Amino acid sequence: MSLKPSIPKGTRDYHPEIVLKRNYITDIIRKVFISYGYLEIKTPSFEKIKTLSGKYGNEGDRLIFNILNSGEKVKKANINSLKNNNIPEFVSSISEKALRYDLTVPLARYVSQYQNEIKFPFKRFQIQNVWRADRPQKGRYQEFTQCDADVIGSNSLYLEFEMIQMYSAVFKRLGLKKVEIKINHREILASISRKIELSDNFLDFVIILDKLSKIGIDKVINELKKKLGLKDKYQSILNDIFKIKSSQETLTLIKDELIDDKSSDLAYRELKELYDLLCINSDDIINFSFDLNLARGLDYYTGAIFEVINVSNQDYIGSVGGGGRYKNLTERFNSKNLPGIGISFGLERIFHLIDDNDLFPDHIKTTNDVLVINFGKEYIHKILPILNKIRSDRNVSIYPDPVKLSKQFTYADKNKFNYVIIFGQEEMKKEIFKIKNLKSGKECINSIKSHAKDFKF
Amino acid sequence: MSLKPSIPKGTRDYHPEIVLKRNYITDIIRKVFISYGYLEIKTPSFEKIKTLSGKYGNEGDRLIFNILNSGEKVKKANINSLKNNNIPEFVSSISEKALRYDLTVPLARYVSQYQNEIKFPFKRFQIQNVWRADRPQKGRYQEFTQCDADVIGSNSLYLEFEMIQMYSAVFKRLGLKKVEIKINHREILASISRKIELSDNFLDFVIILDKLSKIGIDKVINELKKKLGLKDKYQSILNDIFKIKSSQETLTLIKDELIDDKSSDLAYRELKELYDLLCINSDDIINFSFDLNLARGLDYYTGAIFEVINVSNQDYIGSVGGGGRYKNLTERFNSKNLPGIGISFGLERIFHLIDDNDLFPDHIKTTNDVLVINFGKEYIHKILPILNKIRSDRNVSIYPDPVKLSKQFTYADKNKFNYVIIFGQEEMKKEIFKIKNLKSGKECINSIKSHAKDFKF
Repeated sequence: MSLKPSIPKGTRDYHPEIVLKRNYITDIIRKVFISYGYLEIKTPSFEKIKTLSGKYGNEGDRLIFNILNSGEKVKKANINSLKNNNIPEFVSSISEKALRYDLTVPLARYVSQYQNEIKFPFKRFQIQNVWRADRPQKGRYQEFTQCDADVIGSNSLYLEFEMIQMYSAVFKRLGLKKVEIKINHREILASISRKIELSDNFLDFVIILDKLSKIGIDKVINELKKKLGLKDKYQSILNDIFKIKSSQETLTLIKDELIDDKSSDLAYRELKELYDLLCINSDDIINFSFDLNLARGLDYYTGAIFEVINVSNQDYIGSVGGGGRYKNLTERFNSKNLPGIGISFGLERIFHLIDDNDLFPDHIKTTNDVLVINFGKEYIHKILPILNKIRSDRNVSIYPDPVKLSKQFTYADKNKFNYVIIFGQEEMKKEIFKIKNLKSGKECINSIKSHAKDFKF
Repeated sequence: MSLKPSIPKGTRDYHPEIVLKRNYITDIIRKVFISYGYLEIKTPSFEKIKTLSGKYGNEGDRLIFNILNSGEKVKKANINSLKNNNIPEFVSSISEKALRYDLTVPLARYVSQYQNEIKFPFKRFQIQNVWRADRPQKGRYQEFTQCDADVIGSNSLYLEFEMIQMYSAVFKRLGLKKVEIKINHREILASISRKIELSDNFLDFVIILDKLSKIGIDKVINELKKKLGLKDKYQSILNDIFKIKSSQETLTLIKDELIDDKSSDLAYRELKELYDLLCINSDDIINFSFDLNLARGLDYYTGAIFEVINVSNQDYIGSVGGGGRYKNLTERFNSKNLPGIGISFGLERIFHLIDDNDLFPDHIKTTNDVLVINFGKEYIHKILPILNKIRSDRNVSIYPDPVKLSKQFTYADKNKFNYVIIFGQEEMKKEIFKIKNLKSGKECINSIKSHAKDFKF
């Protein structure tokens, strides 16, 4: 009985053209990371459950893919816990490891594990797949690629600038002109929360604030009133703070209105210095804005926060990158205080942005280049030694069977070859071979005795 | 409470130098595959269990990593099957997908699924991780990388030659001179089994034969007698057949003694033609031998079989590649007859072979190149615009904090930087910066107004 072939929901096959396009993006990201001195590491696809659990909140824990213990070990399944509806206990009786959910927890585990060998500050990047048991839907997959760079072991503000430089370098090289880097700081948001007497509910406050770009300030204020009891008198203050303004105006507002303690004072001075650095180096930097309504990742980030958005079509594609500074990467694993800063690129969304805007270079659509038309064994055998010469700088494929020419030319066409090599009876007699450009139709005649460098295309 | 960080048994972290070395190998393999016209695909890390099960034999099925169904779905666990000790049934009640075990079954699934869109012959390669629940031990991991190239939809003998060409190109570029390609053919082994009246036990025969290089001919013959009832009279025939001989002598033996039907006649003619092709193109081909005692993968291969071994130290490192021809890749999925041929590179063993022989090029040991010594914010800010010019062809990292110089130089040393850039008070005054070669100690003085191309290293 035959089996209808298919893949699990939420997964994808990458066909050749897609692989090339994805490699094109990750190669640029990798090169930029390397050019700024980041070193690539890879961690295992699975980690111990105790490494992962409790790191991502209840929602995240639910989305972790557990790997079933193999062989006889599943016999240890705790049936009572299943009967008592204690699913976590049941799962832990039959599973000890789980698939990587992100690249941050593995980094924390890695840095803790090798802290005595690592020379800090440690600049590392990682481009690997992660897995999440999200409900599959259009554009959301259970397996996808993350591209992260982090520096562990330094509080230098220069690194905030470096992160923005790297974002700029990548998006410039990709030709994406309509992206913008938003910058904010946790301590400024904290100051705002104090100003409106919501500092006791800081995380709830920023979760509501994060919706601002989608639902607008009025609805945010209503929600703050309803859910957190925001007092009416603060309404106009919030309206002023979150009115759209330039980076310069935002900095002035912070300076004049939002410095109320040492931390917010320091945060202001950091943002101001970062702003000056960005302005001085503006040739290398893409559009940026200091934006008080950026309120992402605050369960994790303790200083500067970044988000890169597509401004031409924001609702459609959303964020293409994000990052920020954190005080202690490894607190779950040990007591050594290791501050850090990191950014991430959203490969899937960047892919679609480039694809939709037709910004992939033509040459990456296939690696197929030269196809040798097969006129029969004797011709192929004779031309073989020449082909390896051509291969030193071009890709050469031989059509393996001497079938009808029309079929071979159709194959060349459908597989987007640029050239065919023709070496049949007539050519063998004359000791030549022809290289035909399939787009222009132009034919170049070459002697089979020529040196590789003299071949005419 | 702090958690001692560690990874699951059988997995590995790849530190920066290891990542570079592995990329060095896979980049060469990838380039060779592409230069011969193979297209890269990627398939999901997990497949449906029904795609994988029954494809790898009982032993293989046992080594597949199952992924636990997520969320509420585990409640459907079939407790009765567990009580009845029916583990496969229990597992299938809580798991629908499993991690990729190899790249061959996903290829078969892929080709079947997209057979109407693919233009055959389909030349694809795939470099991805696979997972096996093997008992972890030295040099054997539960996660490792496979590198496969296959052609689907052609019976051309030229492809046997192409596979050997690609093996040769890869091992030549890697500088591995002491590897040898062994070549044999299923139909010749079948003929031998007929000659000694063991054709009814063909697969058992080749499993025993496969041990020949380890245990020697005498023990193989003893085992054939004991387990398969080999008759005494065939002992001398086997001794003759498996005596060490040259490829030419092997071909003569086949021609004179082992052609007994149409299939073995065809097999002989194929091997002879392949031999001639290899001799004519010997400049591009590494050492090869036609070797009747190569008896690998015969549950799968139906024609030519290949194995690449390390001849200098065979016992220690074993096979570094293998492949062969098969009649029907996709028979599990549909009735369309799709013959093929494929090879695989053993990345882990190739890695160790190169490492043990110190054949990794020096320049791939780190991507660290230039470190900017940090004399304080004002100096860093001033030199920043220059650094991006240097970054166009070198990797430049800034030490993020203005700590003691000795600490920064130690960091440069331990992290294998080639150069440091020195730009402190004195240099700022003179409007110069120094580039110091850390190996030779040589210092080059550059004007901060120079063009990038004029920088002296």
